[in-house]
Amino acid sequence: MVPALLMDLYELTMVDAYLAEGLHEEAAFSLFVRRLPARRNFLLACGLEQALTYLETLRFSPGELAWLESLGRFSRRLLDWLEHFHFTGDVHAVPEGTPVFGQEPLLEVVAPLPEAQLVETYLINQVHLQTLAASKAARVVEAARGRPVVDFGVRRMHGEDAGLKVARAAHVAGVSATSNLQAAQRYGIPVAGTLAHSYIQAHDDELAAFRAYVHRFPETTLLVDTYDTLEGVRKVVALARELGPDFHVQAVRLDSGDLASLSQQARTLLDAAGLERVRILASGGLDEDEVARLLAQQAPIDAFGVGTSMGVSEDAPSLDMAYKLVEYAGRGRLKLSPGKVLLPGRKQVFREEQDGVARRDVLACHDEVLPGRPLLRRVMHAGRRLEGASPPLTVLRAHARETLASLPPEMRRLEPVRPSYPVDVSPALSESKERVVTGLRERLAAH
Amino acid sequence: MVPALLMDLYELTMVDAYLAEGLHEEAAFSLFVRRLPARRNFLLACGLEQALTYLETLRFSPGELAWLESLGRFSRRLLDWLEHFHFTGDVHAVPEGTPVFGQEPLLEVVAPLPEAQLVETYLINQVHLQTLAASKAARVVEAARGRPVVDFGVRRMHGEDAGLKVARAAHVAGVSATSNLQAAQRYGIPVAGTLAHSYIQAHDDELAAFRAYVHRFPETTLLVDTYDTLEGVRKVVALARELGPDFHVQAVRLDSGDLASLSQQARTLLDAAGLERVRILASGGLDEDEVARLLAQQAPIDAFGVGTSMGVSEDAPSLDMAYKLVEYAGRGRLKLSPGKVLLPGRKQVFREEQDGVARRDVLACHDEVLPGRPLLRRVMHAGRRLEGASPPLTVLRAHARETLASLPPEMRRLEPVRPSYPVDVSPALSESKERVVTGLRERLAAH
Repeated sequence: MVPALLMDLYELTMVDAYLAEGLHEEAAFSLFVRRLPARRNFLLACGLEQALTYLETLRFSPGELAWLESLGRFSRRLLDWLEHFHFTGDVHAVPEGTPVFGQEPLLEVVAPLPEAQLVETYLINQVHLQTLAASKAARVVEAARGRPVVDFGVRRMHGEDAGLKVARAAHVAGVSATSNLQAAQRYGIPVAGTLAHSYIQAHDDELAAFRAYVHRFPETTLLVDTYDTLEGVRKVVALARELGPDFHVQAVRLDSGDLASLSQQARTLLDAAGLERVRILASGGLDEDEVARLLAQQAPIDAFGVGTSMGVSEDAPSLDMAYKLVEYAGRGRLKLSPGKVLLPGRKQVFREEQDGVARRDVLACHDEVLPGRPLLRRVMHAGRRLEGASPPLTVLRAHARETLASLPPEMRRLEPVRPSYPVDVSPALSESKERVVTGLRERLAAH
Repeated sequence: MVPALLMDLYELTMVDAYLAEGLHEEAAFSLFVRRLPARRNFLLACGLEQALTYLETLRFSPGELAWLESLGRFSRRLLDWLEHFHFTGDVHAVPEGTPVFGQEPLLEVVAPLPEAQLVETYLINQVHLQTLAASKAARVVEAARGRPVVDFGVRRMHGEDAGLKVARAAHVAGVSATSNLQAAQRYGIPVAGTLAHSYIQAHDDELAAFRAYVHRFPETTLLVDTYDTLEGVRKVVALARELGPDFHVQAVRLDSGDLASLSQQARTLLDAAGLERVRILASGGLDEDEVARLLAQQAPIDAFGVGTSMGVSEDAPSLDMAYKLVEYAGRGRLKLSPGKVLLPGRKQVFREEQDGVARRDVLACHDEVLPGRPLLRRVMHAGRRLEGASPPLTVLRAHARETLASLPPEMRRLEPVRPSYPVDVSPALSESKERVVTGLRERLAAH
């Protein structure tokens, strides 16, 4: 069930006017990020699956239509059109899990103008969230250098839907598991979890709490920092002695304090007790910078639980993502608002590689054939999803892993790289832009 | 329908263990923000309504139970308990629309330990989002100094649920209207909107676009910056001449460029044409700082459309919000993890006022009676919402307006104020903490 009313009022008023004017010729809208946040060398495209589901299933219920009518703003023509609405257009898109850069379309919608306009708000809402989340998560995964990263962030993600979608996007970007049961159920993501301080606090002493939890969940991870991290580790060691061969605890979780130093000391305590196989999970306000810092200090941490910072993309909680009309009735369209550059027409992006490493992208007109790998492909035709448009999450993860690995190594660094990855505009697209701008200026001058 | 599986795995494993151990005595959990973000002098409590609805309606469906069973992690005892789950506890809370500070409980849950534990993730998820959003929106409203602020942010809010809940929270905080139809329908928030650049672009010239839109929506706001803002305003003037008494356009919208200068020039053009009553709406990447800057420059802007920055709380996209066990089986509980101070036991907050201005808050034990206005009150008993616990949105808005007005004026500034608003701890609560810490250290030393 997609929420039909999750849209800006103006989508409906514009469609109402388009219908009144008979403006129903084919339009192309391009969804792209104008420029990357300061601390992003690339973005990871994500959210196409939800965009396509929306386009396939968007319908207006009698209740929604009655409510819209009650506003007294809309024409009978619009309400009738909405009653029979189903999307009939095409979509061209970059596969989920592909690195993209500023100005590059993540998807393009080609449909009669009213249809393509109507879906703007929701398409941005969903592709923005997941691209934002996947882009952040890819940094955390990179920083962890092969160690598993677990998403612990649902509690401070922005609402129910973010809890689901951010977990999905993070998994595409390489995060191993999530603590969110709903995301695990919905998307088949492995689920993971330990225990909270409240469990320890509810017991009269920490060792009794460990003993009870391990009795129920022998292979659990034990949280050791409720009172004193190293004392907590010593209690894990005591429990191991107590249980002997029945001790199967997999890891200890350090959630506060100086994690570099505490993990070293915890490792030493565990190893001295013959518990080399007990791993160390670190959590507690981690982000990609802190993960990198800990590993640079040789902290013997085997896995990271990352929550809020990844869950809300703390250092860049939004992208300058837009959905812009680039073509209508066969003619390229532009706007000239300052600071908001737009390239006209449907596009293709060619990624040129050398020895398996991406060297530059070329933004081109959609029907050009240039060297390099074209990134956009048709995923929906006449309102129907095409075969292969929705690979399973495992395939998307593998695709993300491969395409991230093919980025120039410096682009995978956490710090901003200047110059940024080169995105050039093809001569044909440049000429097209010049033609459209000239035509526009002539028409503007004439009026 | 609340999403029963939107919770961290560990809530269920902990409950499973509590049930196995017979730990079902009464627990109190406190939901609070540890410390405020650097650029927040106060937070505005919000989201209680959704928290109460969750507690009243949380049930596990056969499908959800079957999926949980399929994980092979949980005991039959837990699954049976979940099958018959309904929340039976009490909730004490600060009313929505009340300013709160670090360490102050926004709500406290008092219930048998497994019940109070189970609901942790969702309560934080919802109260965090709306408190975050209301706190940001209150700043934007304050900066606009009485001019209407309209929420345009749904497209870049984090998913569907954020689109709804942030609109609600912003409205509580004083935002006048939203562009999000779903939020308007769900919560009765006034809906507002103009038109997008795509509408202008789809027409051969701007004046034709204005004419067509105004024909359909005579009292609309016209977007004038698609090609050249002042040329756009001149076209609005031309349209006014053309339509004469049939011209009812309410406002022009400036969405890019130097808004201070452009609004001055637009005002001059409109006034010179006798269009004094046409107002100026500004939008385009605005936040509270930019709104304040524009008004400090005397920009003749009558209303602000604010989107992404308010919608994601760009400068502080998360709060350090926690839900902590503070009492179990009649005894105050603590943890000692570094940097994560906790006060034991159920609490009350007394806000002391002088001449209608809040002077300081005192954090006290829940059964103390101290000078000042107590902020927490019981809103749910034995799982049932109490009368008056859910005032209509208009009442919450009025409450927010009043309580914000009673803050010390310096606390409503956009810049951080030091020292921050005083939140003291009552002697009784301090002693209680000392007692619990001493008892805890003795028990820890004994083991």
